[in-house]
Amino acid sequence: MKSKAVFYHAGCPVCIDAERNVAMAIDPAKYEVEIVHLGQDKARLKEADDAGVKSVPALVLDGAPFHINFGASIDALR
Amino acid sequence: MKSKAVFYHAGCPVCIDAERNVAMAIDPAKYEVEIVHLGQDKARLKEADDAGVKSVPALVLDGAPFHINFGASIDALR
Repeated sequence: MKSKAVFYHAGCPVCIDAERNVAMAIDPAKYEVEIVHLGQDKARLKEADDAGVKSVPALVLDGAPFHINFGASIDALR
Repeated sequence: MKSKAVFYHAGCPVCIDAERNVAMAIDPAKYEVEIVHLGQDKARLKEADDAGVKSVPALVLDGAPFHINFGASIDALR
């Protein structure tokens, strides 16, 4: 049976593509990957909160939260 | 050809198993995954620095750094 991986984000315009790279790098043979935009899907906020998500983007693997911070280049923000 | 994924860490005693879960969740069909303990393998520091790694644990996918912060439970630290 596959484990569950949920990638939560909120549409950060600088980082979204890069963040999705992380979700897309997850092994589909091991994990059923779901991507949730918490800014648009506020009904999922409680579930994210319950999993221990404190900030986005975050990846929840088997119920354990990992907070991911992309080190965006200053140049990307100009 | 596989892309390169490098997971850098420094042996955090609370988080190491959980952090490795992230590295192990990477799709081996897409990425060649390497795990580097920067505390023990200081010769790799410059390479991590050059990739933009500012803190550990970090995952570098195709040369782009993602900083991962495991939300360790307070209970795990007692």
